[in-house]
Amino acid sequence: MSTNGVNGDGGHAWPKDVGILAMDIYFPSTFVDQAELEQHDGVSAGKYTIGLGQTRMGFCSDREDVNSLCLTVVKRLLEKTGTKATDIGRMEVGTETIIDKSKSVKSVLMQLFAESGNTDMEGVDSTNACYGGTAALFNSINWIESSAWDGRLGLAVCADIAVYAAGAARPSGGAGAVAMLVGPHAPLVLDRGVRATHMQHVYDFYKPDMSSEYPVVDAKLSIQCYLSALDTCYRLYKQKAAKRGANGLTLASFDAVLFHSPYCKLVQKSLARLALNDYLALEEGQAKLPELEKFKDTKLEESYFDRDVEKAFMAHSQPMFESKTKPGLKIATNVGNMYTPSLYGGLVSYMTSQAVEELAGRTVALFSYGSGMASSFFSLRVSPDCSAGSPLAKFASCLADVGPRLEARTKVAPEEFVATLSLREKAIDSAPFAPVGSLEQLFPGTFHLVGVDDKHRRQYARTDMAQQNGHA
Amino acid sequence: MSTNGVNGDGGHAWPKDVGILAMDIYFPSTFVDQAELEQHDGVSAGKYTIGLGQTRMGFCSDREDVNSLCLTVVKRLLEKTGTKATDIGRMEVGTETIIDKSKSVKSVLMQLFAESGNTDMEGVDSTNACYGGTAALFNSINWIESSAWDGRLGLAVCADIAVYAAGAARPSGGAGAVAMLVGPHAPLVLDRGVRATHMQHVYDFYKPDMSSEYPVVDAKLSIQCYLSALDTCYRLYKQKAAKRGANGLTLASFDAVLFHSPYCKLVQKSLARLALNDYLALEEGQAKLPELEKFKDTKLEESYFDRDVEKAFMAHSQPMFESKTKPGLKIATNVGNMYTPSLYGGLVSYMTSQAVEELAGRTVALFSYGSGMASSFFSLRVSPDCSAGSPLAKFASCLADVGPRLEARTKVAPEEFVATLSLREKAIDSAPFAPVGSLEQLFPGTFHLVGVDDKHRRQYARTDMAQQNGHA
Repeated sequence: MSTNGVNGDGGHAWPKDVGILAMDIYFPSTFVDQAELEQHDGVSAGKYTIGLGQTRMGFCSDREDVNSLCLTVVKRLLEKTGTKATDIGRMEVGTETIIDKSKSVKSVLMQLFAESGNTDMEGVDSTNACYGGTAALFNSINWIESSAWDGRLGLAVCADIAVYAAGAARPSGGAGAVAMLVGPHAPLVLDRGVRATHMQHVYDFYKPDMSSEYPVVDAKLSIQCYLSALDTCYRLYKQKAAKRGANGLTLASFDAVLFHSPYCKLVQKSLARLALNDYLALEEGQAKLPELEKFKDTKLEESYFDRDVEKAFMAHSQPMFESKTKPGLKIATNVGNMYTPSLYGGLVSYMTSQAVEELAGRTVALFSYGSGMASSFFSLRVSPDCSAGSPLAKFASCLADVGPRLEARTKVAPEEFVATLSLREKAIDSAPFAPVGSLEQLFPGTFHLVGVDDKHRRQYARTDMAQQNGHA
Repeated sequence: MSTNGVNGDGGHAWPKDVGILAMDIYFPSTFVDQAELEQHDGVSAGKYTIGLGQTRMGFCSDREDVNSLCLTVVKRLLEKTGTKATDIGRMEVGTETIIDKSKSVKSVLMQLFAESGNTDMEGVDSTNACYGGTAALFNSINWIESSAWDGRLGLAVCADIAVYAAGAARPSGGAGAVAMLVGPHAPLVLDRGVRATHMQHVYDFYKPDMSSEYPVVDAKLSIQCYLSALDTCYRLYKQKAAKRGANGLTLASFDAVLFHSPYCKLVQKSLARLALNDYLALEEGQAKLPELEKFKDTKLEESYFDRDVEKAFMAHSQPMFESKTKPGLKIATNVGNMYTPSLYGGLVSYMTSQAVEELAGRTVALFSYGSGMASSFFSLRVSPDCSAGSPLAKFASCLADVGPRLEARTKVAPEEFVATLSLREKAIDSAPFAPVGSLEQLFPGTFHLVGVDDKHRRQYARTDMAQQNGHA
């Protein structure tokens, strides 16, 4: 028997205030207007804009893929925060846009670190529909709190291109990427010991056709799964919070409530759903609202599609929706469903919806949902310190360009949008392949596909950061 | 501003002896003999058996897929260890056998927990070629050491079906699954603070053809990447160990050295490679072996394919190979490359190669490699306590049936093996689909595909645990 002498426990305390130090979002420079798409599709006016709550939908040409989206957002986050490539100790990518069954997007991102010589970076790709980004975030935080942590920072990245076959689901697409720098002493601190998860085997939305970008969707089942997972996670979160001394927690306990957003209308219904949960949890003797009295015997598992219940609690929760949830929907309504980055686009929306002085000290609840299914309800606390130079002030300044970038995008006619999706259908799996999408429209600093060679190897380049192409 | 009162740090110490409490392996009940395959393929005798070091290759019919492999191994591990479904608090699957771009294998496994009502289980699927199982193991251990841990156990699962297009790579296939129960007070304790990782963007082996189970392989590049990653990880491991007080660490510091095994010959070369690393790291004045003197100026990055260097260090490390590495190759040579479970099949092989009295207190080094690439060198310590009823004794008894199961498999003629791979090629992506593979040959307690409906939804059933089909 020999010994290498490297084992041993030793004293230890988890680092303080582990959470999100900085984050950035990337969305395509082109969008289609949902009202124009209604006209083009010959559906009634308002079907997409009011029925789904969607205003604009971002989309990519064949110049962008999940690799390029991640390259763009990670490189920009490092640049904007002045983070050195050697500062990163772990990186994980959450995605459901699979363009290789074996090679990870994470491995492609290692190109950004090659020059620095930093290759000691655990983490690969995490997949379960729209939940992969949350898996990456949780794993990053666990690493910081584990014995494997060496003082460097974690990077949780998520990106997807959400496209649907022509038909009713097509307006619920989108595309984008989010990167989050994870570490201690963060301005956004994840609450400990309360993460509540619900995982279940279900075929609500999935992608079994490997040669297509499009999913198979059972729309009604998907809504039911989303709402029932929300009920279960919220109940469990309350139980875990109660165990830690926070009894009688309700929506009033949070300043913001953010959701994964397949489309914005579902998010509004989801907040109403939580209000229903709160109402049904009221104990005898607690003040009940007379106008809701008739719903006191509602069974959660029988009310997913109960229009009366939905309408009553939508109305009841409307003021809360305006103050706590709607500020988190700006990117969701203007870019569409980005899948894994959706919830984190909600966090970006919320954190750019008002001045840091307003945001300081706030508590934010988040619900992550990935079909199939995987879901978690968790919460974070915004640092109370928003002084100049504080982590929170830096966090906010990193996101200062998000609003202007949203506005600087190029509107594309529905016909061209449809033609672009056809382009993408042809691009899928092709090798060799030369993309034909315009480079002119891309934002400065955007990585894009140069070509795929006969061995399916992909090459990327980046548009000039200084270029003036109407967006800069 | 409101507060939910659930934040707070509090005192804490990482749990003691976090590692692998129990593990089990599943491999197919059918195999093809590599010597017979040489004859069938019309290649020279010894090309597969000596050149690759492979004896037998396990394979599945269209009755098994990555979901069924994982269902089988997880269910058996829970049964064999008497672990209740409610004891599990996290589960993650590592795989590169992607049959759905969105829905995780993890979500399919939730079926095994449905009856218990336990759905609060973080973790999804991790992907980077053969490295996914290591990502699942590391993430499980980090969770146990994090503030998110609630006292329950983690499950790290990995499974793959490795098949190649007809040609030179076909004999390097295999199939299998490993499940590991992760927690504190484990008989196999992972060393802290020394995990050394090397990640890099490279196209050595990848699967860009989404409609095929077969990879694209640059065989020579793949070997070079494997060996250079090994060099880098080993150097970094030594650095990290030295920082923790273990200076001058060499192969002599370990009782066993296990590797991801694409084929057994590469593993033997890899041990020789580490011996070369040790030799080149010797300092002036340390005893050098005269027969190796002429290699003292060897450059690692120029010697990946240097036959003289390879031959000299293969001979030099031969005794070490026999004692420290070969005991870990039993499953690799008899089942083939299982991809993600390969390294952990090596651990099972080693832990079943001798009596627990021999294994107690030993130190084991492990090298995990996934193309694309992701790689880690890490180590574990076997508990010194092997008394009756000890965690180590239980660990060993859980694996007692592995040897007999290996022997109880059914040999299939090369013609039938080739016909079965054609069957699988047809099965890929088909919906509706009714598998035609025989159920007779499956081991008792094996989950298998019943059918795929027109919406691509997969249904599984399990063979009787008590059935007598020649294997029980």
